[in-house]
Amino acid sequence: MKKLINDPAEVVAQALRGVERAHPELRVDHTHRLVVRGDAPVQGKVGLVSGGGSGHEPLHGGFVGPGMLDAACAGEIFTSPVPDQVLAATQAVDGGAGVLHIVKNYTGDVMNFEMAAELAEGVEVVAVVTDDDVAVTDSLYTAGRRGVGVTVLLEKIAGAAADERRPLADVAEVARRVNGAGRSMGMALTSCTVPAAGRPTFDLGEDEIEIGIGIHGEPGRRREKAMPARDVARALVEPILADRDFTGGPVLAFVNGMGGTPLLELYLMYDEVARLLDDAGVQISRSLVGNYITSLEMAGCSVTLLSLDDELTRLWDAPVRTPGLRWGA
Amino acid sequence: MKKLINDPAEVVAQALRGVERAHPELRVDHTHRLVVRGDAPVQGKVGLVSGGGSGHEPLHGGFVGPGMLDAACAGEIFTSPVPDQVLAATQAVDGGAGVLHIVKNYTGDVMNFEMAAELAEGVEVVAVVTDDDVAVTDSLYTAGRRGVGVTVLLEKIAGAAADERRPLADVAEVARRVNGAGRSMGMALTSCTVPAAGRPTFDLGEDEIEIGIGIHGEPGRRREKAMPARDVARALVEPILADRDFTGGPVLAFVNGMGGTPLLELYLMYDEVARLLDDAGVQISRSLVGNYITSLEMAGCSVTLLSLDDELTRLWDAPVRTPGLRWGA
Repeated sequence: MKKLINDPAEVVAQALRGVERAHPELRVDHTHRLVVRGDAPVQGKVGLVSGGGSGHEPLHGGFVGPGMLDAACAGEIFTSPVPDQVLAATQAVDGGAGVLHIVKNYTGDVMNFEMAAELAEGVEVVAVVTDDDVAVTDSLYTAGRRGVGVTVLLEKIAGAAADERRPLADVAEVARRVNGAGRSMGMALTSCTVPAAGRPTFDLGEDEIEIGIGIHGEPGRRREKAMPARDVARALVEPILADRDFTGGPVLAFVNGMGGTPLLELYLMYDEVARLLDDAGVQISRSLVGNYITSLEMAGCSVTLLSLDDELTRLWDAPVRTPGLRWGA
Repeated sequence: MKKLINDPAEVVAQALRGVERAHPELRVDHTHRLVVRGDAPVQGKVGLVSGGGSGHEPLHGGFVGPGMLDAACAGEIFTSPVPDQVLAATQAVDGGAGVLHIVKNYTGDVMNFEMAAELAEGVEVVAVVTDDDVAVTDSLYTAGRRGVGVTVLLEKIAGAAADERRPLADVAEVARRVNGAGRSMGMALTSCTVPAAGRPTFDLGEDEIEIGIGIHGEPGRRREKAMPARDVARALVEPILADRDFTGGPVLAFVNGMGGTPLLELYLMYDEVARLLDDAGVQISRSLVGNYITSLEMAGCSVTLLSLDDELTRLWDAPVRTPGLRWGA
């Protein structure tokens, strides 16, 4: 294992010090391992809290800022944050209008966010769980489907709804609508290596790829021989389109890198995905290409499609100012 | 070699189709392999053209847009664009105020941009060459020092100067000032693999790293045993500080990923770099952390320091709207 780290046990804590130094507009709570908007709590605005295991950066800490999250809880790598962290984040961002918890559907995350919500006396909390990954159900760490790429889009769109000072129930409804209208599937060319483990999470042959991989290296649907990008795109897009009808309205197409794949290849994959959507009669109105929800240095990609309506489009286009996503502000 | 590609010979052409689909505000000239601002030429504004070998994305095509480049020429991977490409880009962005060529100091690039400037009859062209890499002089593809991380900062700052409708000589002066005030050094944990070659550009042992690596995998200063991040930071920052005095004024600190290193590690490296600068009495006023000038999927990082004055700070902070860097617009 060669990595730019010191002690494997200190990776997350030290990376948070780097975040604090690089982004003076954010506040880092080192005790609870939180990244918080510098001006939190914003009075009268619903606070958005997300979080999860580290190793998926920029998700979630890189999405804290005006128009997106108010706070992100950083667990150990690929490990849920504990309830105390989520509680501290919830209290830090409560501006009197309640707090939305955005939780990827992994058993530990769901449980710990629930416990934090119970502990957050006096703060109204609603949780929305993302479960957009069509690859598998009931996987290694999950009852039901896993939450993946839709989480990025949901944090942006729900953040814009909260920015409009809409009430908690409304913001939660928007968030649920995004999760319901989005589907994802991913694949890996290589494994990643968790620093504390010191060796690859799984073994993949020199000429093998894994279709339907999870963001922690959980097994996918199947292993196959390495194949051209056009066949990889088909292996991801077809199950998504089989799971939900994306025709009949505009779609946001999101090609995400797992961390170790060059942007050049992600744009090439985007071309393949866009062709398949053309052929299927799916109309792309917005797009996102890059590394947004990663698995350390894993090579591979995922595809997320999200059906947009006028409101979701407007909220997607609204200004956002975070380290990882920024426009119009 | 496992990559998200189809035919190795078609990678750049197809990635440009993806760029075109994902960014409707940009124009792609597939014949000349250019990414051009959709509204080019901007009348009365100096046009900024850069380019180079592909494989360093988002550099340069990801930096085309208001406040930064007007056009980028995409060569084959790690191969200079040819004069015809640069000529076409120059003509496409000439709004009557002349064109600035921003060229990284590699022999092929310098020669081909010079030839294009000679061919661009009727267009006033000034070239600025970046050569900020302190690692080596006269390396594999270079007479003098290599142009690396400063190129990103220069494209942003000169782009802002051009946006103020300053004359070509002024914009070129700002660009030269940035190059003179910046220094960089990089390192690799792994090699990258050029698709057409099909095997790693160089061999690095399981426990070896290369200090002073170039962005095409050119040899650096030395190979060493893998070491903690704090020692890597020292091996990059010390030669930079030995080469130029960065005390006595604010500095932009830029920790760049080579493409295959997780953001988590880059923020950890940023913490190490910031500590070393604290100890050396260097004051950080701006920062940039992420993958901006890459070497395909190489794992590793580079550090760039740039001395800022009031004008350069203002130009850095000015609005920019490109796929790779965006704020205030």
